[in-house]
Amino acid sequence: MFEVKVTENMFIAHSLNDDLFGPAQNLHGATYVIDLVVSSKNLTSKNIVIDIDLASKLLKKCISKYNYKNLDDIPEFQNILTTTEFMAKKLTEDFIYKLELIHYDIKALYSIKMTLNESHIASASYLTLLNE
Amino acid sequence: MFEVKVTENMFIAHSLNDDLFGPAQNLHGATYVIDLVVSSKNLTSKNIVIDIDLASKLLKKCISKYNYKNLDDIPEFQNILTTTEFMAKKLTEDFIYKLELIHYDIKALYSIKMTLNESHIASASYLTLLNE
Amino acid sequence: MFEVKVTENMFIAHSLNDDLFGPAQNLHGATYVIDLVVSSKNLTSKNIVIDIDLASKLLKKCISKYNYKNLDDIPEFQNILTTTEFMAKKLTEDFIYKLELIHYDIKALYSIKMTLNESHIASASYLTLLNE
Amino acid sequence: MFEVKVTENMFIAHSLNDDLFGPAQNLHGATYVIDLVVSSKNLTSKNIVIDIDLASKLLKKCISKYNYKNLDDIPEFQNILTTTEFMAKKLTEDFIYKLELIHYDIKALYSIKMTLNESHIASASYLTLLNE
Amino acid sequence: MFEVKVTENMFIAHSLNDDLFGPAQNLHGATYVIDLVVSSKNLTSKNIVIDIDLASKLLKKCISKYNYKNLDDIPEFQNILTTTEFMAKKLTEDFIYKLELIHYDIKALYSIKMTLNESHIASASYLTLLNE
Amino acid sequence: MFEVKVTENMFIAHSLNDDLFGPAQNLHGATYVIDLVVSSKNLTSKNIVIDIDLASKLLKKCISKYNYKNLDDIPEFQNILTTTEFMAKKLTEDFIYKLELIHYDIKALYSIKMTLNESHIASASYLTLLNE
Repeated sequence: MFEVKVTENMFIAHSLNDDLFGPAQNLHGATYVIDLVVSSKNLTSKNIVIDIDLASKLLKKCISKYNYKNLDDIPEFQNILTTTEFMAKKLTEDFIYKLELIHYDIKALYSIKMTLNESHIASASYLTLLNE
Repeated sequence: MFEVKVTENMFIAHSLNDDLFGPAQNLHGATYVIDLVVSSKNLTSKNIVIDIDLASKLLKKCISKYNYKNLDDIPEFQNILTTTEFMAKKLTEDFIYKLELIHYDIKALYSIKMTLNESHIASASYLTLLNE
Repeated sequence: MFEVKVTENMFIAHSLNDDLFGPAQNLHGATYVIDLVVSSKNLTSKNIVIDIDLASKLLKKCISKYNYKNLDDIPEFQNILTTTEFMAKKLTEDFIYKLELIHYDIKALYSIKMTLNESHIASASYLTLLNE
Repeated sequence: MFEVKVTENMFIAHSLNDDLFGPAQNLHGATYVIDLVVSSKNLTSKNIVIDIDLASKLLKKCISKYNYKNLDDIPEFQNILTTTEFMAKKLTEDFIYKLELIHYDIKALYSIKMTLNESHIASASYLTLLNE
Repeated sequence: MFEVKVTENMFIAHSLNDDLFGPAQNLHGATYVIDLVVSSKNLTSKNIVIDIDLASKLLKKCISKYNYKNLDDIPEFQNILTTTEFMAKKLTEDFIYKLELIHYDIKALYSIKMTLNESHIASASYLTLLNE
Repeated sequence: MFEVKVTENMFIAHSLNDDLFGPAQNLHGATYVIDLVVSSKNLTSKNIVIDIDLASKLLKKCISKYNYKNLDDIPEFQNILTTTEFMAKKLTEDFIYKLELIHYDIKALYSIKMTLNESHIASASYLTLLNE
């Protein structure tokens, strides 16, 4: 099994409107330093998992939808708790959609994992297998 | 699959009394920077894997049993090689026990992984699946 | 010259209302992973620069003023560009004020530096000498 | 499941002779900071996955074949795209071969993963299971 | 005193043709993860040391001169030992030159420091004061 | 001004026998990940601050005196609080002594700084200027 990882970051504001989240119920923000890991069982004829420049470009496009935004203002996130876990899944789904838009052969990949590091002591990830 | 990671650290002394360990047979010590990763297949109704404050609080309780201690003085570790691997497993078991004590729904989780980083160039981990 | 460093973090929202900041004019947010460095020319009789637990406790108090907040809502920051540089200075001043409140012998210290890491690729710092 | 990780690095030059790689078609170079992860389902009688000094020593031997070299000059790499993914697999195979040479009980291990970090924002890995 | 730091990276090949450098006399390569630190005694009217996007853009231009290149092929480096220290100074001078080209008010800055991290265990820096 | 940094680590046990240190009065231990920074105003004829292999070799010799030891057992540390600050100074002095032993031209250097990182959230340093 092969993996490649590329790292980007985004800056968002949000509030988590449930008692569980204590002070994070307030409008606040976070930097997500994002590690995107794409894996495949075999390499392409160019000895790569995926073109790393393509992966970075598509990830940046996904990020641009939320970067420098208040997630509370995004229509599809109304009444949704935009936790780090939730955003990890959302960015993974967005990334796969970007691959589909360019007719990328997703079946050649094995998995996609998106880790959002929110500080030096906490992160959340979402992993999806692409052939299930 | 979702994951969350929280990071803590502890300071211990110990000796590894077997020829295999060379100079580490002496009484010495280590900082373990501990990455606890909890995973689950689904998020709770609050869009989380586990309450990260709860996970941190329980991890700190587990650490307090060994932190600022000489592991050689701990009765249950007599005649045991307290390697980093061993301590990773011990902390994982202690963490699960803390979850059980508060009647946490452990079956809702998929796995727990405890990584003990002992320097910038070495670490050890223990991973357990919770539904096997 | 001796230094000690302690690390904490905070989560804030803000907007930077000037054309210079491009998309950062929007309400967004950031995690600041904060490295506080305190230096002194000599050690105390306990062989330390400053009690690291005291430094952490005071730093946490300083952070609590802004953590999980929208800086745009803080009265004293009205019409102020709350850049990372500005916040680094503000936290340094707040930290010194906390030291003064407990009548700490600030003259025994040489400098205080506060670095706010806002991502894996950007940070800002403020350094002040305490005997000038 | 247990894991241990050791970290080393190597400095290589190479060129990637395919249009896909854009400027990386030029002769250039990279530092690979290498994380070797060895896993096993059980610990040995010494409470370890593998002797970490042995693992480091063998990894250094593997690295010495390529370190401070131009990969383009290595006969077995002629007409091969020496991508980070490819080198991750090559080093894994070399490491397993070194284990075999000393008649190490490889079946006692579960997997070997070699991650080559080529910058603060990109890496590639190869993972192999040892009992399949 | 204020500082801002931005991080970029570059991939180069080179050889260090002197006995002192042992195996590094061979043609090999390195990733330099570059931390550019710009400091000033005061902030601008926008509460910044320097526009961080401008600093990044200029640094990328400086890097593009060497990135994905063999330094041995660069005419001005003939018969020069292109050590990490040397390259740190060269990039600093190049960066200052880029500032001069756009008539940036360099006298408003206090210092520029360029750190080239060549692995997880080694780096070199060059620091220059701008008003001496 | 030029700097080079090399990184090593050591594992020690110790106790800090003063009420100030709370639980650290117990015998415990720490990993110190050590960043040695050597600076000089000018480079040598080989375009370096100091031979990085020499610096590493001497640093390793300094470390070997304390590595895998209980500092409480070292005769010269009796009745001394072996804080991280103290050990940073001790290693700096030891390193300078090692340079003197080989008649290194110390006056060609500007400063030596030894940073002992004891966890992901705390470190201490000692800096000495060599021409004062």
